[in-house]
Amino acid sequence: MSRRAESPDDLVARARDGEARAIGRLISHVEDGSPLLREVMAALTPYAGGAHVVGLTGSPGVGKSTSTSALVTELRRRDLRVGVLAVDPSSPFSGGALLGDRIRMSEHATDPGVFIRSMAARGHLGGVSRATPQALRVLDAAGCDVIIVETVGVGQSEVEIARLADTTIVLLAPGMGDGIQAAKAGILEIGDVYVVNKADRDGADQVRRDLRSMLSLAQRPEGAWLPPVLKTVASEGQGTAEVVDAVDEHRVWAEESGELARRRVRRARDEIEAIALTALRERWGSVGGGDRLDTLASHVVDGTTDPYAAADALLTD
Amino acid sequence: MSRRAESPDDLVARARDGEARAIGRLISHVEDGSPLLREVMAALTPYAGGAHVVGLTGSPGVGKSTSTSALVTELRRRDLRVGVLAVDPSSPFSGGALLGDRIRMSEHATDPGVFIRSMAARGHLGGVSRATPQALRVLDAAGCDVIIVETVGVGQSEVEIARLADTTIVLLAPGMGDGIQAAKAGILEIGDVYVVNKADRDGADQVRRDLRSMLSLAQRPEGAWLPPVLKTVASEGQGTAEVVDAVDEHRVWAEESGELARRRVRRARDEIEAIALTALRERWGSVGGGDRLDTLASHVVDGTTDPYAAADALLTD
Repeated sequence: MSRRAESPDDLVARARDGEARAIGRLISHVEDGSPLLREVMAALTPYAGGAHVVGLTGSPGVGKSTSTSALVTELRRRDLRVGVLAVDPSSPFSGGALLGDRIRMSEHATDPGVFIRSMAARGHLGGVSRATPQALRVLDAAGCDVIIVETVGVGQSEVEIARLADTTIVLLAPGMGDGIQAAKAGILEIGDVYVVNKADRDGADQVRRDLRSMLSLAQRPEGAWLPPVLKTVASEGQGTAEVVDAVDEHRVWAEESGELARRRVRRARDEIEAIALTALRERWGSVGGGDRLDTLASHVVDGTTDPYAAADALLTD
Repeated sequence: MSRRAESPDDLVARARDGEARAIGRLISHVEDGSPLLREVMAALTPYAGGAHVVGLTGSPGVGKSTSTSALVTELRRRDLRVGVLAVDPSSPFSGGALLGDRIRMSEHATDPGVFIRSMAARGHLGGVSRATPQALRVLDAAGCDVIIVETVGVGQSEVEIARLADTTIVLLAPGMGDGIQAAKAGILEIGDVYVVNKADRDGADQVRRDLRSMLSLAQRPEGAWLPPVLKTVASEGQGTAEVVDAVDEHRVWAEESGELARRRVRRARDEIEAIALTALRERWGSVGGGDRLDTLASHVVDGTTDPYAAADALLTD
């Protein structure tokens, strides 16, 4: 068998036919920062915009993988094509992954309407992979109706997911140290849909009540979305249809209110800025042969210049 | 009484004489992003480099304020001038502060050898104030021997503190949900000194043992620093002298090994980059009258351009 053409245009065409291998190759280009990446992105551009991006986050142990799997089952029941990006936030220092087993997802492994990919977040302070927005473009262009981006809520990753997603699901569970959950900065402000999983356990109703009462305290402008708080037993598929319904209601609201357009522009802004900054860092690092920024930083440390003058020097080089 | 001169040079001279009001005014220039900020930074530059910056972080409830206060007492006993920056990480969305009462610090309020300032972190994703490195410059130039930067370990703030500090203290306490503490990405990698506070409570020895065994698993190069794990009862001042000793030992090791110089260059790099990026964002936002980045982002959303081409356009404008 001869090796098939793997130019970006070919890969995009095959990905649009639903060929999992082509989708995987495109995401590898994204993850590896391949020299063809610019060409890949340009080839994807005409096919953008169809997918609804659902962020799913929660503390370790609330049942994220099980919930994702249950959501995939329900979305497939509705005949939708689904992409899943499971982002493993790593320590920014060691690159060691926190998440492990994706076994529960394996029931979808042979379904051609589902594409699943784990992504490391190595090398990026904050947890969500630098490559995630671009991987979303691949799955979007490949014809996914819904893309679930799943990440564990440690560090800054849940805030980053919320900035990426069209709809953000925050998952909780009883007995997980709810004081700490509630104290986590921003958890009450990032969710569009809250789900108390493991609802067959003691304390689920209490978590739901507490959350509802905390959410009701927030000031919301007229016509704003009030995030629902649902209950699931994801391992049994209980309540999952209601979660999908709530995501869909949020999507409709976001489209009509203009919030969806605002979020997508913000996502594109973040993406453009990140690409520009990466290009600038390369430039700053290599000006004059050595590491220009290191040299300037040394001058700041030894007191021969100040950081503003150094920044000026960097920008005018 | 005539109003005293408040030019940056005057303020710096008075700050170096230990005048708290002048130090406070300089930090306000920093916090407000005052038009005089460049001039302030230039005036501080000749006096840089003396202070040892100690980061102190931990989950809510481990006793950070009490520990900071006990450390200040011990440092004063050693006749050192001390600055304290208490950074309140806010939600990136609402700007609401999580921390509150600084009452325990009030015992130091009348000590002219101690300067204490709370800083909000508003407007900066991640928790640690954008202004913190510059506030450190003020306290450094004002003659502080040690500057403690205290922040609650939520979101990304503890990683940011570790990047700022010469020595980072990570505070823990028994019964605080240690599984979650340990699972927090990076906590085992950011501390130079670990302290189990509330050591008179059940479980303190267990936390210490667990932490030591986790720390011993990490691979370290020859000659690397092995972070000690100490115990304190900060409310009684118990163990605080040993913490100060450990910080000092780390300082000596860091000086001799070159690690201190590396950290300070990194801190200056981060600071220069942040200033350059802020300048670029202003430029990007205002090119062509409207918001250039928003316009480009809209084109990416509607599929008429791709993010790389948009970044190119931004950088060549």
